[in-house]
Amino acid sequence: MTKDELRELLKEYKRGAISDRAIIQKISSLTSELMGFATIDHHRYLRQGFPEVILCQGKSPAQAAGIAARIVRRSLLLLATRATKEHFLAIRKKVRNSHYHELSRVITANEPANPHKGRGTILVISAGTSDIPVAEEAVITARMLGNPVATLYDVGVAGIHRLLSQSEALLSASLVIVVAGMEGALPSVVGGLVDVPVIAVPTSVGYGASFQGVAALLGMLNSCASGVTVVNIDNGFGAGFAASLMNRPR
Amino acid sequence: MTKDELRELLKEYKRGAISDRAIIQKISSLTSELMGFATIDHHRYLRQGFPEVILCQGKSPAQAAGIAARIVRRSLLLLATRATKEHFLAIRKKVRNSHYHELSRVITANEPANPHKGRGTILVISAGTSDIPVAEEAVITARMLGNPVATLYDVGVAGIHRLLSQSEALLSASLVIVVAGMEGALPSVVGGLVDVPVIAVPTSVGYGASFQGVAALLGMLNSCASGVTVVNIDNGFGAGFAASLMNRPR
Amino acid sequence: MTKDELRELLKEYKRGAISDRAIIQKISSLTSELMGFATIDHHRYLRQGFPEVILCQGKSPAQAAGIAARIVRRSLLLLATRATKEHFLAIRKKVRNSHYHELSRVITANEPANPHKGRGTILVISAGTSDIPVAEEAVITARMLGNPVATLYDVGVAGIHRLLSQSEALLSASLVIVVAGMEGALPSVVGGLVDVPVIAVPTSVGYGASFQGVAALLGMLNSCASGVTVVNIDNGFGAGFAASLMNRPR
Amino acid sequence: MTKDELRELLKEYKRGAISDRAIIQKISSLTSELMGFATIDHHRYLRQGFPEVILCQGKSPAQAAGIAARIVRRSLLLLATRATKEHFLAIRKKVRNSHYHELSRVITANEPANPHKGRGTILVISAGTSDIPVAEEAVITARMLGNPVATLYDVGVAGIHRLLSQSEALLSASLVIVVAGMEGALPSVVGGLVDVPVIAVPTSVGYGASFQGVAALLGMLNSCASGVTVVNIDNGFGAGFAASLMNRPR
Amino acid sequence: MTKDELRELLKEYKRGAISDRAIIQKISSLTSELMGFATIDHHRYLRQGFPEVILCQGKSPAQAAGIAARIVRRSLLLLATRATKEHFLAIRKKVRNSHYHELSRVITANEPANPHKGRGTILVISAGTSDIPVAEEAVITARMLGNPVATLYDVGVAGIHRLLSQSEALLSASLVIVVAGMEGALPSVVGGLVDVPVIAVPTSVGYGASFQGVAALLGMLNSCASGVTVVNIDNGFGAGFAASLMNRPR
Amino acid sequence: MTKDELRELLKEYKRGAISDRAIIQKISSLTSELMGFATIDHHRYLRQGFPEVILCQGKSPAQAAGIAARIVRRSLLLLATRATKEHFLAIRKKVRNSHYHELSRVITANEPANPHKGRGTILVISAGTSDIPVAEEAVITARMLGNPVATLYDVGVAGIHRLLSQSEALLSASLVIVVAGMEGALPSVVGGLVDVPVIAVPTSVGYGASFQGVAALLGMLNSCASGVTVVNIDNGFGAGFAASLMNRPR
Amino acid sequence: MTKDELRELLKEYKRGAISDRAIIQKISSLTSELMGFATIDHHRYLRQGFPEVILCQGKSPAQAAGIAARIVRRSLLLLATRATKEHFLAIRKKVRNSHYHELSRVITANEPANPHKGRGTILVISAGTSDIPVAEEAVITARMLGNPVATLYDVGVAGIHRLLSQSEALLSASLVIVVAGMEGALPSVVGGLVDVPVIAVPTSVGYGASFQGVAALLGMLNSCASGVTVVNIDNGFGAGFAASLMNRPR
Amino acid sequence: MTKDELRELLKEYKRGAISDRAIIQKISSLTSELMGFATIDHHRYLRQGFPEVILCQGKSPAQAAGIAARIVRRSLLLLATRATKEHFLAIRKKVRNSHYHELSRVITANEPANPHKGRGTILVISAGTSDIPVAEEAVITARMLGNPVATLYDVGVAGIHRLLSQSEALLSASLVIVVAGMEGALPSVVGGLVDVPVIAVPTSVGYGASFQGVAALLGMLNSCASGVTVVNIDNGFGAGFAASLMNRPR
Repeated sequence: MTKDELRELLKEYKRGAISDRAIIQKISSLTSELMGFATIDHHRYLRQGFPEVILCQGKSPAQAAGIAARIVRRSLLLLATRATKEHFLAIRKKVRNSHYHELSRVITANEPANPHKGRGTILVISAGTSDIPVAEEAVITARMLGNPVATLYDVGVAGIHRLLSQSEALLSASLVIVVAGMEGALPSVVGGLVDVPVIAVPTSVGYGASFQGVAALLGMLNSCASGVTVVNIDNGFGAGFAASLMNRPR
Repeated sequence: MTKDELRELLKEYKRGAISDRAIIQKISSLTSELMGFATIDHHRYLRQGFPEVILCQGKSPAQAAGIAARIVRRSLLLLATRATKEHFLAIRKKVRNSHYHELSRVITANEPANPHKGRGTILVISAGTSDIPVAEEAVITARMLGNPVATLYDVGVAGIHRLLSQSEALLSASLVIVVAGMEGALPSVVGGLVDVPVIAVPTSVGYGASFQGVAALLGMLNSCASGVTVVNIDNGFGAGFAASLMNRPR
Repeated sequence: MTKDELRELLKEYKRGAISDRAIIQKISSLTSELMGFATIDHHRYLRQGFPEVILCQGKSPAQAAGIAARIVRRSLLLLATRATKEHFLAIRKKVRNSHYHELSRVITANEPANPHKGRGTILVISAGTSDIPVAEEAVITARMLGNPVATLYDVGVAGIHRLLSQSEALLSASLVIVVAGMEGALPSVVGGLVDVPVIAVPTSVGYGASFQGVAALLGMLNSCASGVTVVNIDNGFGAGFAASLMNRPR
Repeated sequence: MTKDELRELLKEYKRGAISDRAIIQKISSLTSELMGFATIDHHRYLRQGFPEVILCQGKSPAQAAGIAARIVRRSLLLLATRATKEHFLAIRKKVRNSHYHELSRVITANEPANPHKGRGTILVISAGTSDIPVAEEAVITARMLGNPVATLYDVGVAGIHRLLSQSEALLSASLVIVVAGMEGALPSVVGGLVDVPVIAVPTSVGYGASFQGVAALLGMLNSCASGVTVVNIDNGFGAGFAASLMNRPR
Repeated sequence: MTKDELRELLKEYKRGAISDRAIIQKISSLTSELMGFATIDHHRYLRQGFPEVILCQGKSPAQAAGIAARIVRRSLLLLATRATKEHFLAIRKKVRNSHYHELSRVITANEPANPHKGRGTILVISAGTSDIPVAEEAVITARMLGNPVATLYDVGVAGIHRLLSQSEALLSASLVIVVAGMEGALPSVVGGLVDVPVIAVPTSVGYGASFQGVAALLGMLNSCASGVTVVNIDNGFGAGFAASLMNRPR
Repeated sequence: MTKDELRELLKEYKRGAISDRAIIQKISSLTSELMGFATIDHHRYLRQGFPEVILCQGKSPAQAAGIAARIVRRSLLLLATRATKEHFLAIRKKVRNSHYHELSRVITANEPANPHKGRGTILVISAGTSDIPVAEEAVITARMLGNPVATLYDVGVAGIHRLLSQSEALLSASLVIVVAGMEGALPSVVGGLVDVPVIAVPTSVGYGASFQGVAALLGMLNSCASGVTVVNIDNGFGAGFAASLMNRPR
Repeated sequence: MTKDELRELLKEYKRGAISDRAIIQKISSLTSELMGFATIDHHRYLRQGFPEVILCQGKSPAQAAGIAARIVRRSLLLLATRATKEHFLAIRKKVRNSHYHELSRVITANEPANPHKGRGTILVISAGTSDIPVAEEAVITARMLGNPVATLYDVGVAGIHRLLSQSEALLSASLVIVVAGMEGALPSVVGGLVDVPVIAVPTSVGYGASFQGVAALLGMLNSCASGVTVVNIDNGFGAGFAASLMNRPR
Repeated sequence: MTKDELRELLKEYKRGAISDRAIIQKISSLTSELMGFATIDHHRYLRQGFPEVILCQGKSPAQAAGIAARIVRRSLLLLATRATKEHFLAIRKKVRNSHYHELSRVITANEPANPHKGRGTILVISAGTSDIPVAEEAVITARMLGNPVATLYDVGVAGIHRLLSQSEALLSASLVIVVAGMEGALPSVVGGLVDVPVIAVPTSVGYGASFQGVAALLGMLNSCASGVTVVNIDNGFGAGFAASLMNRPR
């Protein structure tokens, strides 16, 4: 409720158009709206064209499909992550034009045809071939949110020339997402080369003392390169979402 | 070396102004400059007015002072973190107008008088009073890098109304740094209220099962709010630096 | 054996009604009864209408069914947790009117028709949809023990207004159980809003650095809200049981 | 603001006693009050006679003293934990009748002369002599909050008869706080003996594989006795506070 | 080779019965025998009637069966642990009278009909029903090694009277093996009651913060009862073997 | 109280020599005595000449001295571990002939002049020079409890011949305590050489990834040698005490 | 590009054979070549006859087969590790003479018929039978890289004479790879016996507190024997590769 | 004892020059010599000019000095690591020409004037300034063992051009030791650039989630570059010693 709407409400009350009880109840129920957040939250999604995202893991196909249907009805756009084939089969029944990205286990519907205006390119880099599924989750998320995205895969630090020979791609990016497992060293190297924000995504790729991504996570948190921030292990979605927020034109 | 400079060099060579051996040595030594990164890196600092930052921890006062003197000679600006009083006493002898921020253990010199143009306000929030030293490290870093900074301290989640009553400050920020120890829950709440990037800084504040900040770190990495990225425990500097990169006008 | 009973025994012995050997054996066997605990323990269950609870995990269906039959014979009431379908099939053969709660993997029989008198409402809150199975384990446990229970699901901190708009439910609860995975921040927020005991239940919901519930557990143990106590990861039963003890009328 | 107050406000507005702008501003600023929580929170403290508690650790003596002075002015009662002698010296200057409990490092002022009415006895048990400082923190907290408290110290499980011989104290308690380091087994034994809530407090007492209280914490979280809830390592205050909430007459 | 045998050898050499080269080779090859250990090791098994034990985990059924056949040929006795049904099927083909203990996953052949002389009773206690498989591994191991064994199952600390009522069994044991998962508190209680060695075996029984037996292991290592030693998680065999060594008549 | 004593009591009661109230109180107070444990416990110490042991860590010098005085009055023998010089100064005032073993930080009084009869030699082995303080704690404990003790120091696995050349000492030991830090490999080697129980004591000697003894602890728990049991890190006392129990003549 | 080639290029430019633009582009594109590494890297593989190695884990059979085909075309030699049967079936279609080593899950093609000249023997030792798959990965890697390899399996420290009796094999090795799970003590013993480099490979063999190889890893990192270096858990390939580098004739 | 010496001994015995008892005792005492290891071990040190190294940590100054004196008497050369000033003062009294390297806390005496013949250069690289003390420990160790050493300090991955511009130093090294704290990424980059063995040394430099070097250690163990082996955190000595073994001419 805007101040204008509140003014109208009060005027109606003054001229007797609404009762004492009605206006008291209305104002009492403002609690969350008056906070400004819920309202703005709602407006933001409409304005940005992006509603709630479904984390399928831990939800049944039926639950996921039910939520998906409700979201698409309101906002058309659908993004569901960590989805199994079963989740997709259930969702497809309710959201006809939905699409399953098998590698990244993401379901989308109504991806924007073009990036939103005024946005720079988000560069998504992966250290190895096995990190690509997580990288792709970031790519699709960033695209769904209206960002132009470029990728540079399999350029890990053990063959540093692979990365160095791509200086043009690095230097033209608006911001960089670096996805790496094992020792997770790539974000430090990239962070030293570019002057834009770097979001580091550790992956669970590796074995033994990689401890399902802990080694990469610690490596990234301790990066000696300034400007690197980190998200959870395998959280390509989180990186893509944060990158999109950072990439909004001001 | 720019392409224009290279063109000049080659022309000089063509007209015999420089010898075979000289031009070969010059081009061979281009290695790092030709990579583009080192050069750009250098230009970037000059352009942004921000040189190397000194992490005093693990360095002797003499070492820190030597580096500080060299930095200030080239670029005037000085930022040194995790500095003891001893570090400051050594640096002050070489950098007269340097200043010691005792609470945050930061040394600065020649802080910019005004924020750089075109930058939004970075809001730094702390959960408790004990988190303020780390928050201040972020504040000073962001200010040194030319950003307008606002603060909101001691608004932890156990009294959520303290935060909610500050909706205006939250909603007008260009991006938010949230500093919290103990359970580290504040970034999740803030991340759900704003639509700008949130950088979460876990602190080592707490005891027992806080494990010197590990509980807060894990809480932040697992944040259910999208758009939250995380830096190392007590790394106020890293948060301030990353925030400044995200805050650059494009 | 009460002191009165002991007095009677001694009198009988004095008047020769029982032999030396008999009274010596009786007193010797008092060991555990004289401690008072075993006896009282037994009486307590009869009085409260609640016998032993079966943790099915690690027990074969046959073992679980055997124990269930014995319990029901003595006390009618049956509560078995972490039960598979196989456990249920075996138990159902011995306890006809038993019921399998699939979501929470709980088996019950003879649930009390109405809450016991003089008990306030236990409010069970879950942060997300995936936490509901654990929440339901707490709900069913608390109901079996005679408590009125209300629920509030999927009100995690990333959309804090969802919780805040339910102030009435929060403020009318006699005590609150908060079930949350990922960063486990919800109990801190709830603990700051209510003035009744809060029992926090971390769940293994999450991925990567959630470490199967460790992040949530640590978050809850370090809660900055006073009055929060914690149970084991995924231990909905324990929370429901402790809540019932706290909820007894005095 | 109560509904009655709101009704009054609206009436004044209707009869023109306050301007459009004034009433809009008032209603807008209700945000936090309308939530109900902040207000109630405030009332609760007044009603219970218990204000904010100061965690001195991480605060300077001056900061702690400043907060203490403000608290005592409003509510007389003062409770400050993890206080050093320096904290006390600073506080004593501002709060004359304050008292330093050296063993438990707690500062109090204006402790209630008698327990509040209608409250049962909280029994605080320690496993060893070295656990007493933490136990005392719980004792003082519970006393400050108006509870009658009894203690039973040095009755660890390695000499189980020490505990068993105290059945009367155990069975007459309204609820039990068990403080133990090393293997933290005592709460399980106590939990099996009593039918009231047990709050377990792990301590950092021990060495080697006790890992500063982690062994005790894990032991308590995995307690096979139902009805045991746990607080952070060495968190005597938290146990005392939670116990007091559980102990309120309904 | 004994000193007497060596003396004989030298005498033969002196009288020319064996060549220079032969005696030099013989002495050179004494290396391991002269150490005394290998020889004694060998004699010990023959004397005690107990050869090598097979840890089937990580070995193929064929490998296990091959080793088993060789062992039985030399010493009749067979003990193989952590065996699957497949291991048993392969072994049974080579060792006809072998037997598979399904609960404890142990394979035995030629178990001694009676305990060896002069040995006291080893009492094996389990905290819960789910700990019995590990307890049985200890029981069978101790029996194969010639010890009389008694058992006391499901007497965990949450119902301490179950244990206390068995004082006779406890006090007549020559040594006690205590098997417990979850918080692993039982060895501390038992260790405080008896004056014989207690071997504690943590099990992986439990969930959440039991961390597959780590909580129980830490609890046992930090036992406040003197005289408790610990073996690896789920290592019933190790406990049975060590107990047998401790139980040998001197 | 024995059955005979109980019979006497009852007879006295029967003939009126003691009142109803007196006999009831006596029987009620039997609780712990009737359990058999406390009584036996008490007798055991008298019989073995060994009372309670004081863990000084976490106790004030005054507390330790008070307990020491009480113990010595009853039983002469005194053993106090992890004692600082301050503990000793306080104890010496109350127990004149007490002695401080500086290296092992143990205080003793009235050490038995000769080992008890019928006991074999306990061999205490240390891997390195830095492990000797822990080894000495075991040595003194075992001596105080009446065992003959031999030592073999600085025979770690990196120079295995140092150990192998001591086969006589190894083979003549009744049981072996092996004290080792760093990788903790020595108990496995010793366990493979001897046929008596081996108690392994990990020490906190080492740096980096030794994690204050965790590496050694894990190494010992996973020992591939049968018959090895383990105590807490740096727990020389526990090893000495357990060894003494194992070493009692039967 | 060598200096000679650069000299030629410059001469051509001087005499006008190539344009300004062309030479500038050429020099700019030298970036990675001028670094020297990429070029040399390439030459090295050709010279040593060893190309890229495929880590199959995390790659689809099709991906692995595609890479394998490309590698073999260029360099004949193929080494692929952590390969499933599915990987092999896909690779065999593209690389006819490839071979699957089932035990070690390695795929090879065109293994060199004889070791390269001037290389000493690499001795690969395993502690147990279950460690052999990892040991074999090291063996095959070292053989593919042209090294003579000897093996010594199942000589763990619990029967140290098994190792000691093989002094000849130990002393004639050029360097030693020691593969061990459980407590990982073997490298320390071996490191104390030989005067050549020892590479320690922890394996995930074990259970309970072996934590999938962490116990062995820590044991090896803390080895008291000088000259021991360590690779990741189960990383037989890494050990074989590093050993081959160390074994190159200089 | 060589075979020739044994032959002589036997001959003497045959001709009666030595008694039965004497020869038997001699052969019995051969145990360790016959193993070959002890003897060779001894010879090796004499041959290489390098005796035992003293780890001062955990040893008293007097102990260290005693050992140092004995070593120097036999072999002149002295290397003592992790030495405090106190250790040095004690050693200097016994070993006059000893020298204290303050930065690396190493004590040496009689360092070889020139490197041994036939040895390539060991290159020691450090990521940061704070890693230099550990790097220097490696440098001094390698020099004492007769190796030529070169250094390259403060060339961490965040400014990768610093390393890349040193290709000559990298490519001419016989083997490389890389010392790095924080994320420990440098060995992966170096390992990808060179074709010689890389020994990685994690340091405890860093804060927060570096966990005293664990992050760096894990990063190095998971290095995606082949040919990297790892030593314990801060173990510069171990790296220098292993490097020297690898560097021996064959």
